[in-house]
Amino acid sequence: MAKMNLRPLDDRIVVEPVEAEETTAGGIVLPDSAREKPQRGTVVAVGPGKMLDSGNRGELSVTVGDVVIYGKYGGSNIEVDGREMKILRESDILAKVL
Amino acid sequence: MAKMNLRPLDDRIVVEPVEAEETTAGGIVLPDSAREKPQRGTVVAVGPGKMLDSGNRGELSVTVGDVVIYGKYGGSNIEVDGREMKILRESDILAKVL
Amino acid sequence: MAKMNLRPLDDRIVVEPVEAEETTAGGIVLPDSAREKPQRGTVVAVGPGKMLDSGNRGELSVTVGDVVIYGKYGGSNIEVDGREMKILRESDILAKVL
Amino acid sequence: MAKMNLRPLDDRIVVEPVEAEETTAGGIVLPDSAREKPQRGTVVAVGPGKMLDSGNRGELSVTVGDVVIYGKYGGSNIEVDGREMKILRESDILAKVL
Amino acid sequence: MAKMNLRPLDDRIVVEPVEAEETTAGGIVLPDSAREKPQRGTVVAVGPGKMLDSGNRGELSVTVGDVVIYGKYGGSNIEVDGREMKILRESDILAKVL
Amino acid sequence: MAKMNLRPLDDRIVVEPVEAEETTAGGIVLPDSAREKPQRGTVVAVGPGKMLDSGNRGELSVTVGDVVIYGKYGGSNIEVDGREMKILRESDILAKVL
Amino acid sequence: MAKMNLRPLDDRIVVEPVEAEETTAGGIVLPDSAREKPQRGTVVAVGPGKMLDSGNRGELSVTVGDVVIYGKYGGSNIEVDGREMKILRESDILAKVL
Repeated sequence: MAKMNLRPLDDRIVVEPVEAEETTAGGIVLPDSAREKPQRGTVVAVGPGKMLDSGNRGELSVTVGDVVIYGKYGGSNIEVDGREMKILRESDILAKVL
Repeated sequence: MAKMNLRPLDDRIVVEPVEAEETTAGGIVLPDSAREKPQRGTVVAVGPGKMLDSGNRGELSVTVGDVVIYGKYGGSNIEVDGREMKILRESDILAKVL
Repeated sequence: MAKMNLRPLDDRIVVEPVEAEETTAGGIVLPDSAREKPQRGTVVAVGPGKMLDSGNRGELSVTVGDVVIYGKYGGSNIEVDGREMKILRESDILAKVL
Repeated sequence: MAKMNLRPLDDRIVVEPVEAEETTAGGIVLPDSAREKPQRGTVVAVGPGKMLDSGNRGELSVTVGDVVIYGKYGGSNIEVDGREMKILRESDILAKVL
Repeated sequence: MAKMNLRPLDDRIVVEPVEAEETTAGGIVLPDSAREKPQRGTVVAVGPGKMLDSGNRGELSVTVGDVVIYGKYGGSNIEVDGREMKILRESDILAKVL
Repeated sequence: MAKMNLRPLDDRIVVEPVEAEETTAGGIVLPDSAREKPQRGTVVAVGPGKMLDSGNRGELSVTVGDVVIYGKYGGSNIEVDGREMKILRESDILAKVL
Repeated sequence: MAKMNLRPLDDRIVVEPVEAEETTAGGIVLPDSAREKPQRGTVVAVGPGKMLDSGNRGELSVTVGDVVIYGKYGGSNIEVDGREMKILRESDILAKVL
């Protein structure tokens, strides 16, 4: 995976979606018809964490390379180097696949 | 129950729904027609707890193996190893069955 | 009243509704046509109290056995041992009948 | 006024409405057509006050016997000993009549 | 102006509207067609101030006798001694006329 | 500019709009068709600042005489000495023109 | 780039959009049909940062000259020296392009 030239702000995370075909690989499939189903992707860039009231930033629970499950309708779609990506907030991430 | 390869974030909980047929087993049935009725399931994975303002995480009230009652419309449906599951927040859990 | 095998989370409370016929017993009736009228019931299970910012739990104002007035549309209906019950939050309870 | 066998929770207050005919007695009438006009009533029971973050309860500004002005659509209607009453939160009370 | 027998709660304020005819007196008129225009009135009673988290009450910025500009749709209309009045919260007051 | 006899409360600000014709003067025009476009005006009166939790008031970032850009639909229109003005909160001010 | 005579308030940021044609330059394109797609632009002015509860201002994560990705529907459009610009809050900025 090439180094990303995009730096998310705050607790935002850039995720590259995993194609539906590959999803069964780790034993996890994302069904429930098409509506509102969560999706799976690989984290390609993370922000510095959310600014807390104390002035410090909260540590993110995911890092580059993690495979994550996220809500389909969260975040914004962007295209980086010809690949479709998603910019999400950490709270849009439901779970990590171990 | 096989070990789950899914790690929920924050105070999220993965629940495997109990089939409606089995529900009478513990003496608890979930009626009230089909609309908005709570459902019963078994906890199969829990997150680290919600990040508090202090920087610590709040301890969850449920653990893996607990049978819980939860609102039907909370959370997201996912499929893990061919089984239908639900990712919920702890606040979507109404009660534990003892 | 048999011991309840249901443990509500946080500040949730399980109430068994009192039939409309019995309601006049304590001198309190709940009229105002059918719409949005509060209802009366007996508390059969209580949670540990709401988690406060301090990490402690707030003490509940009602205990098992209390007769309470609550808003009709709060909470969720469940059936326990063949009896219709309601899971409410403490804030859905309007008053105790002394 | 007979002693009330109803104990409101938190900052709730039970008010017995004053009939529209009597309203001019204290020099205060509540007009503005029928829509959304405030109403006048007598406080017949008060709760222990709202639970504060400190764990203490906030003192209520009204006591049993006070005549108060309150918004018509706040609170819930109940019937106690054959009399129509209203359960309100303190914030639904606009003013006391001195 | 006769002494008012109405005591507003918290940060509420009783205002007697100034008739539209008089509004030009201080050089201030309230136009913008009829819709949503602010109005001018005289403060006739004030509450003790809003309860703060500290348990103290916040001091009000207006006192009895002040002429104020307020949003037309804020507050509730009441009639006191045959005069039309308004009960507002301090946050509904836009400005004082000096 | 004559001294204003209007004292806004809290963080409110009275702005006199600059006519659309003059807007090009400072090199700044406000286009984007007619809908929701920000507008430019001169600050003619400011409040004491917003009451903070500490009991102090937050210092305003604008002073009388500043030229500011503000959202068209924020605030209330009033007429002072025959001139159309706007009462806004500081948060409705987008930028100062230097 | 000429010096900007516009000073945003709080955590607001003035961005000059990059034309769609140029977007592929840094390897980043913004697709996803026309609806709700994020856009790319150059920061031309920044505010002093958001006022924190402590009375200090939070440091902004972007500075003049940064190329940023932002949500299309955030902020307000203004025209400065004949150029179309956008006034956004920092939270409307999704990422910086490195």
